[in-house]
Amino acid sequence: MAGYVSDAVIKRLPAYYRHLQELEKEGVTQISSKDLGERMNLTASQIRQDINSFGGFGRQGYGYSVTGLREHIGHVMGLDTAHRMIIIGGGNIGKAIAASASFARIGFETVAIFDNDPEKTGEWIHGIPVQDIAVLERFVSEQPVDIAVLAVPATEAQSMAERLYKLGVKGFWNFAPVDLKLPRGAVAENVHLDESLEVLSFRILQE
Amino acid sequence: MAGYVSDAVIKRLPAYYRHLQELEKEGVTQISSKDLGERMNLTASQIRQDINSFGGFGRQGYGYSVTGLREHIGHVMGLDTAHRMIIIGGGNIGKAIAASASFARIGFETVAIFDNDPEKTGEWIHGIPVQDIAVLERFVSEQPVDIAVLAVPATEAQSMAERLYKLGVKGFWNFAPVDLKLPRGAVAENVHLDESLEVLSFRILQE
Repeated sequence: MAGYVSDAVIKRLPAYYRHLQELEKEGVTQISSKDLGERMNLTASQIRQDINSFGGFGRQGYGYSVTGLREHIGHVMGLDTAHRMIIIGGGNIGKAIAASASFARIGFETVAIFDNDPEKTGEWIHGIPVQDIAVLERFVSEQPVDIAVLAVPATEAQSMAERLYKLGVKGFWNFAPVDLKLPRGAVAENVHLDESLEVLSFRILQE
Repeated sequence: MAGYVSDAVIKRLPAYYRHLQELEKEGVTQISSKDLGERMNLTASQIRQDINSFGGFGRQGYGYSVTGLREHIGHVMGLDTAHRMIIIGGGNIGKAIAASASFARIGFETVAIFDNDPEKTGEWIHGIPVQDIAVLERFVSEQPVDIAVLAVPATEAQSMAERLYKLGVKGFWNFAPVDLKLPRGAVAENVHLDESLEVLSFRILQE
């Protein structure tokens, strides 16, 4: 669908999608690379390069079709299909993700939560029961799962990812402060909250 | 304290810190740039360049002192001083951050939570009362605050940041899906969870 897309462009795709959604809400139907660039803090030529790199979307006349481009980028990111997500770990982060409506709104639906703590299993979070991790294999064999959210301690994340990979899960949203080592075909996106806070601390000191 | 440090290096600082902490736990006292590089998936020369760029730490003999380097990086990031944090928004994300012990462990202490919802004010989250946002000005004038966590809807994040900046808050940990426009001297670190999930979706499709 898309050819080689650089990491920098990949990280910008969601921002494109968000800005185009906002433009749609504002009733804007066409936008030039210059105006989109000003809005996104990029140059017009960067905008054109980015959009060329994920391919298949031409510029018509005086600019891009806002809806057309938003739909195209959504398609490139796979946002036009639903994703089934399970959460491993019913702690604070796991609970917050399960309880948030915003992920479901963009097509990522939490279908199950697992934990190994008997005090947590049996609890319900936002209408989803927390199940014993012992039934993970049975659950995943019966129901397709696209993404596993790893909201487990650092020491358990790698082995949990391997266990899930064996069950066919290929996408990991990793909140544990470790860099997962994954086999080919599996991908992880890390949310390292501690590290984000440490970077903020550094930037404050630099000011 | 540090001279110009590139964005890429800044983002790697927490990983240095984390790996050096792990090495300390393993009882390693000295490490070469080659061994540290292998561990961190960087080349030895990248390691040396990075460490030179945040300055003031020489290589002794056969390698770096693990504790010395960890302390130096901690100091460069400001992790050797405590940070006082307030959370704006007592929803799922605000609650998860308040309830997490891990941020306090690295020196970021939540001292107050604010919300504008009368149903939330008066609640206690992990021993911290949720206060009415109306008392924000009084609170911040009486107690120093280094960092504000913005766990508010996208539509409120910018005006809330401006309100806090006027009160002297310079550091923003922003969970709202907007790019804040801040005056000089203020810094934000964004955690865009929706976007992280969208990037994961893209990467899954590419596999």
